[in-house]
Amino acid sequence: MLNIAIAGLGTVGAAVVRQLRQNTEMLAARAGQEIVLKAVSARDKNRTRDCDLSGVAWVDDPRGLAALPGLDVVVELMGGAEGAARDLAEAALASGKHYVTANKALIAAHGPALAVLAESTKTRLSFEASVAGGIPVIKAMRESLSGDTVESVCGILNGTCNYILTRMRDSQMDFATALAEAQQKGYAEADPAADIDGHDTANKLAILAALGFGLKPDIAAIRVEGIRNVTPCDLDFAQELGCRIKLLGIARAVEGGIEQKVGPSLVPEKSPLAAVDGVFNSILLKGRQVGPVMLEGYGAGGAPTANAVVADIVDIARGSKAWAFSVPAARLKSCKPGKSLPTRYYMRLQVADQPGVVADVAAIMRDEGLSFESLLQRGRSQSSSIPVIITTHKGDSGAMRRAAEKIARVPAVKEPPCLMPIEDQ
Amino acid sequence: MLNIAIAGLGTVGAAVVRQLRQNTEMLAARAGQEIVLKAVSARDKNRTRDCDLSGVAWVDDPRGLAALPGLDVVVELMGGAEGAARDLAEAALASGKHYVTANKALIAAHGPALAVLAESTKTRLSFEASVAGGIPVIKAMRESLSGDTVESVCGILNGTCNYILTRMRDSQMDFATALAEAQQKGYAEADPAADIDGHDTANKLAILAALGFGLKPDIAAIRVEGIRNVTPCDLDFAQELGCRIKLLGIARAVEGGIEQKVGPSLVPEKSPLAAVDGVFNSILLKGRQVGPVMLEGYGAGGAPTANAVVADIVDIARGSKAWAFSVPAARLKSCKPGKSLPTRYYMRLQVADQPGVVADVAAIMRDEGLSFESLLQRGRSQSSSIPVIITTHKGDSGAMRRAAEKIARVPAVKEPPCLMPIEDQ
Repeated sequence: MLNIAIAGLGTVGAAVVRQLRQNTEMLAARAGQEIVLKAVSARDKNRTRDCDLSGVAWVDDPRGLAALPGLDVVVELMGGAEGAARDLAEAALASGKHYVTANKALIAAHGPALAVLAESTKTRLSFEASVAGGIPVIKAMRESLSGDTVESVCGILNGTCNYILTRMRDSQMDFATALAEAQQKGYAEADPAADIDGHDTANKLAILAALGFGLKPDIAAIRVEGIRNVTPCDLDFAQELGCRIKLLGIARAVEGGIEQKVGPSLVPEKSPLAAVDGVFNSILLKGRQVGPVMLEGYGAGGAPTANAVVADIVDIARGSKAWAFSVPAARLKSCKPGKSLPTRYYMRLQVADQPGVVADVAAIMRDEGLSFESLLQRGRSQSSSIPVIITTHKGDSGAMRRAAEKIARVPAVKEPPCLMPIEDQ
Repeated sequence: MLNIAIAGLGTVGAAVVRQLRQNTEMLAARAGQEIVLKAVSARDKNRTRDCDLSGVAWVDDPRGLAALPGLDVVVELMGGAEGAARDLAEAALASGKHYVTANKALIAAHGPALAVLAESTKTRLSFEASVAGGIPVIKAMRESLSGDTVESVCGILNGTCNYILTRMRDSQMDFATALAEAQQKGYAEADPAADIDGHDTANKLAILAALGFGLKPDIAAIRVEGIRNVTPCDLDFAQELGCRIKLLGIARAVEGGIEQKVGPSLVPEKSPLAAVDGVFNSILLKGRQVGPVMLEGYGAGGAPTANAVVADIVDIARGSKAWAFSVPAARLKSCKPGKSLPTRYYMRLQVADQPGVVADVAAIMRDEGLSFESLLQRGRSQSSSIPVIITTHKGDSGAMRRAAEKIARVPAVKEPPCLMPIEDQ
């Protein structure tokens, strides 16, 4: 009998309770022992929840779960890198309880320290649900690529952004309208910043990079851009260039280290990532031996995420073993960013329609050692600015950003350039 | 220290040796102990192999590996459901050695009995490499869907067939030419029957169905058709209907049981499986909770398959535990085929160009309760037969096959109809 407690009874927490209650017999068969929900903790005891909590102890302060006698596993679905979640994780692992969580912020911030603690008490720290919901990417990286050297991880890791970008393209919506629709459908939070500014993706990428490259997760090492500045015009031009725009999280081995970045990117239509639309998530792993492996599925939602939580619990019940981050925590290295991989770029300029602008821009690019692949200028207007779309050959990303800054200061350029890499994944 | 032996040093075996030799230190870190290759066995001791076997004992009869003292794991990469492979599996597991294999025929035929043996000696029977090479689908089904109820498994599981079908479409080749090219490139065997007639896919599907539905693998329960009768004309018409043709293995929960079948099928272009081309494999799992999960990657080849073998070895070194088929072997049920899901069909007839043929065909279909969705007849010819393409609304597969048999006996119909389901996966 494996006794568990759950802290946090939101969408995912309630779905975990339902799965444990509905499939008791099947779960016991697969796990080799009965899994019993002993206690829960959540903010509001009186809220109506779509799950059966009869016979389950209620604990007001989630931290109290770590001290409950006879408990084997604490499942934390509250979120947050600090506060109650961190306290609970430390107390639970220190007292010999396994810890299962969907909390990407906690793992990205404190994963290695918690893994050290887990190793010292011979407990497991499991977080399949922290990245890409129902897609078993954590297990794949931790256990299925054990014999391989990961070369790159590239993912569409945020369903909210992917939904917004898909709707903007399919229905010619602007960003604000697509965001409002996503909020109305429950795909975006009331405060959408964490999703649309790329921070959610960055947390997830930091965890995947840790697993793939044996690194301490390091959000600060990730260059993060969100999708607020993507316009329907960009989506149209991308399509004309044979590409889709996706918010990608990328970690890859480069000269001198691991490059990590999050940002809207052009993905050629022939890439398997290009076809991943709506709220789906997808991860394209590349291993030296295994080649490309792509995983796709629902990246969020109560039932898919609960499925990942329950799989972690069953693993623990079976007595399965694996290092939290593929290797012992003491071996995790600090991230060195290394030299960015030369990349093709897409740049949209809004310029006054007057002679000489392209010459100014071309001179700046020449001075930074960058070369044009194509230039598109459509429409003419005396009064307002018109878009000029430039694509470059592969060039240094630092040089490209410097060029964009200089171009922004050209008087005829009316807005900061919209700059996106073209990722041939 | 985990001592292993390998039986079979073909492409995969040599790649396993290379991975173990090249990554010793990294593997030890991930596994928690050193993995040491102690002995090998293969048919010809004197053959030159692209791997370093210095310091490794050579055993002439692979069966002898089971009796070696101090050995922890036997890795079998010989193939074959009977003979040496079966003897070795039984002897190794009985003597308390873990067994890792890529042998799909063995697992499909004797997996449950071997799993019983493994449980009795507390050893592991691991076969990630037996299905879809580098794609971690066995682990995903066994360990990542523990909390879920699988509804269907649908896969492109044979790279040879997928390569042939892709080349036939892209280059308007006929089947024989595409097969010859595949053989020349090393993607097809000299005797290609197991691949192109669907038996390889059936073995793999039987294993996936066992994992997904808690069944004893049962090849005899699978309706198997190969791709020999697919023509460039079918690929053209499929394209016109917005579909691709893929050799699919499908297992799904239906009324009264689990339907399992292998055959060339039309896949609508919007399905993620439609875009899987060339030697790639792909599996689309559907779970009640998790929804669709798609996995894609190289389904064969030395390095990807070796990667799966090494991952199984590392799992064992870590002390990881899981039932071979998700549940204890004694719980595996016999497969009941149940009632086939009503399906849309594509049928190509080669008919003499004379009045009345369609009326005859329509009457047969009406009598079997089947209804037309579309009918295409292109070109006219006095001398030779012309193709008539029929698509149906969803209908009973038994009725469809009976109708096809009756239609084959209509005098104006010059060849047995080419019948393929349209699978809206």
